[in-house]
Amino acid sequence: MQDEARLTLVFSVLADPTRRAILARLARGEATVSELAEPFDLRQPTISKHLRILEEAGFIRQERDAQRRPRTLVVGGPLEDIDTWLTPFREQWERRFDALESFLDKKPRRAKKDK
Amino acid sequence: MQDEARLTLVFSVLADPTRRAILARLARGEATVSELAEPFDLRQPTISKHLRILEEAGFIRQERDAQRRPRTLVVGGPLEDIDTWLTPFREQWERRFDALESFLDKKPRRAKKDK
Repeated sequence: MQDEARLTLVFSVLADPTRRAILARLARGEATVSELAEPFDLRQPTISKHLRILEEAGFIRQERDAQRRPRTLVVGGPLEDIDTWLTPFREQWERRFDALESFLDKKPRRAKKDK
Repeated sequence: MQDEARLTLVFSVLADPTRRAILARLARGEATVSELAEPFDLRQPTISKHLRILEEAGFIRQERDAQRRPRTLVVGGPLEDIDTWLTPFREQWERRFDALESFLDKKPRRAKKDK
């Protein structure tokens, strides 16, 4: 899949509060389907559908524990692609905050001089 | 708008390659509608629609230059919300990489001992 098509998929997958909550839970450690279903008022097939979408897009994977089949976050997965995609924007807002900071640093000195 | 509803909107807005390209262009500095339309094989109404969506979601704004009406990125806008949302995941993958690194650091020492 091309980078842009992949990013489009990744952002669409995240445009769902249940899927974001599942990822947030997995950031704290692996969990089984029933553990993941617990906080939501959703039937297991609905949760399983969300898990399949997250797995197909590369966010999560199933561990090889045949009985519990816990899910874990994939390290270096699509969330890191988003982090990388944010880089030029982060640089831009950091530059602007630096400019604001140096403006505020200069302000009091100039005020003293005027007095 | 609630935080979760807002994040859902923000991720949906980004699930479009043209809108991401417009944001990437604006990360390099302000631009007029025709400058933004140039790299795309799209009619101006289509670009204007994307700009309206980006503006309504708080990503960009119009500068007060009545003639040129350039668009700029909003500093501290939704992209920073995504950056904040990524924090626990970033911490998780940094922890895992640290663990891998310390595992690799220990490896050669143990190998020497065994010989």
